[in-house]
Amino acid sequence: MASPIRIAVAGARGHMGRAVIEALADEPGLVLAARFGRPGDERDGLVDRAAALAAADVVLDFTTGAASAALAQACAARGGPALVIGATGFEPPELAAVAEAARRIPIVRAGNFSLGLAMLLGLVAQAARALPAEAWDIEILEAHHRRKLDAPSGTALMLGEAAAAGRGVALAAVERRGRDGLAGPRPPGEIGFAVLRGGGIVGEHSVVFAAESETLTLSHAAHDRGMFARGALAAARWIVGRAPGAYDMQDVLGFMPIGQENG
Amino acid sequence: MASPIRIAVAGARGHMGRAVIEALADEPGLVLAARFGRPGDERDGLVDRAAALAAADVVLDFTTGAASAALAQACAARGGPALVIGATGFEPPELAAVAEAARRIPIVRAGNFSLGLAMLLGLVAQAARALPAEAWDIEILEAHHRRKLDAPSGTALMLGEAAAAGRGVALAAVERRGRDGLAGPRPPGEIGFAVLRGGGIVGEHSVVFAAESETLTLSHAAHDRGMFARGALAAARWIVGRAPGAYDMQDVLGFMPIGQENG
Amino acid sequence: MASPIRIAVAGARGHMGRAVIEALADEPGLVLAARFGRPGDERDGLVDRAAALAAADVVLDFTTGAASAALAQACAARGGPALVIGATGFEPPELAAVAEAARRIPIVRAGNFSLGLAMLLGLVAQAARALPAEAWDIEILEAHHRRKLDAPSGTALMLGEAAAAGRGVALAAVERRGRDGLAGPRPPGEIGFAVLRGGGIVGEHSVVFAAESETLTLSHAAHDRGMFARGALAAARWIVGRAPGAYDMQDVLGFMPIGQENG
Amino acid sequence: MASPIRIAVAGARGHMGRAVIEALADEPGLVLAARFGRPGDERDGLVDRAAALAAADVVLDFTTGAASAALAQACAARGGPALVIGATGFEPPELAAVAEAARRIPIVRAGNFSLGLAMLLGLVAQAARALPAEAWDIEILEAHHRRKLDAPSGTALMLGEAAAAGRGVALAAVERRGRDGLAGPRPPGEIGFAVLRGGGIVGEHSVVFAAESETLTLSHAAHDRGMFARGALAAARWIVGRAPGAYDMQDVLGFMPIGQENG
Repeated sequence: MASPIRIAVAGARGHMGRAVIEALADEPGLVLAARFGRPGDERDGLVDRAAALAAADVVLDFTTGAASAALAQACAARGGPALVIGATGFEPPELAAVAEAARRIPIVRAGNFSLGLAMLLGLVAQAARALPAEAWDIEILEAHHRRKLDAPSGTALMLGEAAAAGRGVALAAVERRGRDGLAGPRPPGEIGFAVLRGGGIVGEHSVVFAAESETLTLSHAAHDRGMFARGALAAARWIVGRAPGAYDMQDVLGFMPIGQENG
Repeated sequence: MASPIRIAVAGARGHMGRAVIEALADEPGLVLAARFGRPGDERDGLVDRAAALAAADVVLDFTTGAASAALAQACAARGGPALVIGATGFEPPELAAVAEAARRIPIVRAGNFSLGLAMLLGLVAQAARALPAEAWDIEILEAHHRRKLDAPSGTALMLGEAAAAGRGVALAAVERRGRDGLAGPRPPGEIGFAVLRGGGIVGEHSVVFAAESETLTLSHAAHDRGMFARGALAAARWIVGRAPGAYDMQDVLGFMPIGQENG
Repeated sequence: MASPIRIAVAGARGHMGRAVIEALADEPGLVLAARFGRPGDERDGLVDRAAALAAADVVLDFTTGAASAALAQACAARGGPALVIGATGFEPPELAAVAEAARRIPIVRAGNFSLGLAMLLGLVAQAARALPAEAWDIEILEAHHRRKLDAPSGTALMLGEAAAAGRGVALAAVERRGRDGLAGPRPPGEIGFAVLRGGGIVGEHSVVFAAESETLTLSHAAHDRGMFARGALAAARWIVGRAPGAYDMQDVLGFMPIGQENG
Repeated sequence: MASPIRIAVAGARGHMGRAVIEALADEPGLVLAARFGRPGDERDGLVDRAAALAAADVVLDFTTGAASAALAQACAARGGPALVIGATGFEPPELAAVAEAARRIPIVRAGNFSLGLAMLLGLVAQAARALPAEAWDIEILEAHHRRKLDAPSGTALMLGEAAAAGRGVALAAVERRGRDGLAGPRPPGEIGFAVLRGGGIVGEHSVVFAAESETLTLSHAAHDRGMFARGALAAARWIVGRAPGAYDMQDVLGFMPIGQENG
């Protein structure tokens, strides 16, 4: 391992930017080459974008849609560095700009960098595809702290989408939320959601595949939010040397897209 | 253990009656002394009620309200045997007749003879009383097979009643079912219910006490319905030699009524 | 689905044979075409092997190694029916005979027909391959009833093999059983086993992937042994119309062999 | 709630002292009245012991045995304040000095201030007492991070002691650790331990009561170590106005000592 991978962090003063910089210190083979923020912001050792791009093998981007699209175009125009995007709040033209940039450089974009959740999403899709819906009922349970406002969680809905995709149906057509009262027998094919809220639970998700004589349960528990920073750094390690293209965390984990395994 | 406890089973041709008779064969120290059904039914070795009562130390009753009330009165009039009632469907006058009989003989009556669930109910009430509601959120999760019609299960609601009683509140005032959508932050004191349905799950109940930094979870899983027969036989062992009175499964387990421990 | 799949059951008087015949009654699209046992055994409606093979699309075989090898050769000599083998106790020459037969007819052979466990094995191998061993610790927990003699269970060891194969190591080199005492910090790469024994627990297995900030848990619980009969029938449905070859339950589920997904 | 409870913290510069002072800021009705360390240490706003005792209703003590014993005597000599001791490393004469002080002032002493674990210990003892050992097998499972050196955890052993006490037996006589190999059928009365190690798991403990047809599981999970600070503050609230005496976290939770409930 001759030389370490040089990381630049965009959005370095934000919550995720700081978390990634902190996590970087514990990762062998990665070095922080540059940090940058908004144009002109040079407080605390921030540099300008051009200098940061020149110094890095990979940029980790925790800005927002418009800034992220501009950054992707700037990287593409230079022919690098590679880009790992954790920014949120993209409008369609911004997504198009990122897609265009991915024709020239490799880009991983993810809404959630947890490796465990990416793994869970991939496993759920496979199990949903392989286990016949007439015999195997799918239920999704999530638990979060008392301050969470929405239910089910966005991740629970993503798990539902993965399960529905595995079965080749639309989630909206089969989802069942908030069972209560005289609900009658459970229809085959339904995907149910159940929600717990309490205390400081960081985030737990389970997908239950229940058959007449056996139950398969695939679960993820977050201990702390450090998993997002660690996953972004895993994506940075993975992307170095890849061909140009648009990637996600499933690619980082080495999953095939659903439906292509047996092709 | 000089002589075994002699058991008579009322409602011996019904589902629970047969299950208890089958379970009895494996229980040392208990013998089946008589089986009886409706008056005049003497098929399959059934005897009449008077003969059954004369032959037994304990009657296990799996009939319905009216028959059970008459049986309780008959036992009381004779000064015994003791009675374990698993019958369901009581009208208020029938309950009054049972209560009256309990002044002369010991009677255990239970809607559910599972020792584990009785234990869980007692532990939940204690934990709910001891752990302050501002810091500890209570959530109840249950999972059952796909054929179950109602939600939450009756047992889940009993657990909610036990938790509410432990906190000195009415369940109706604090329960929250079927969380879905933009629910907002969780109010302190709420008792939430979540429901899973799938496959052949016999019955699972969990009561979660979630604080900011720790979670206590009390759970019960049924493997098969044999637990009801075994619990009824445990009640039969317990009741022999007791003073007249109306008892429940909490008494069989040796719990104090809630609120009396520190008196 | 014009005509149902015709099933013959070999070893029809044994425990698994009877369970499969019972489960068959609930399965649409499958019919019991013939039952057979040892040569000459024609009690209870059993027929001879030649008649059974002539009447069936698939033979489900719950005999033992020698009988199973002979059956496979007989099916191959006729060019069918297809074969689903749940027999146990094979000597190497018997396995060779089965392999030879699989050049002419499709054969699924499995030691355990649970679809959920086959799924779990496949998911564990994938997760073990994708999640780096330096960051993700693998632990395997199993729980069984009090009558089980060996520990860890054979299935737990199979899960350990799947995890080790996913990582490209030999289980024997990394396994750690029965942690107790001053064990020191956990070495990276270790695969740990933990065992619970109690009551009537039918069988529960969990594979835990634990990272610093998140944990992924893949679990299976058996409710009753009917899962084996149902899985054998799922294999029977799957095998009809397949090319000759030796298959296992991973194939029935549609998994690719490990390491081929990205090839 | 006229006036807040005034807290002094001894050992204020140590790990637990600082954690409690931080947690105090979020607790209504409690105020930090004084912090003190070793005699003569007046850095960072520390005061001397006499001033601290004069200013406080309760002292939270996170020193070590000798300092704690001297502090208890000083509080007793003044007739207050009350004392909550989380110090560790007591020699027998130091414990005797604390016990002597508890004749004049109320003292809570605990090795572990988690309210959830104290609750779990109490519930386990009760369940172990009420559920007959012939029918209900007890197993204890614990999971901790990869850096933990010993196995089973001290808390798991405390849970085993509580279970054994509930059954009126010595843990050493019934414990079974690290099951592996051809272990044979599980003997009735045994208390088994199983251990998982991996990643950053803060600490999870489950006590399983397994019968033939049902399983009761009592579990605790720690999210972060803030539970210890919060529990110490709960003890501080509880102790104000109590009679002199030696108390523990079971008292704070309102549990009766085992064996006295029905007496």
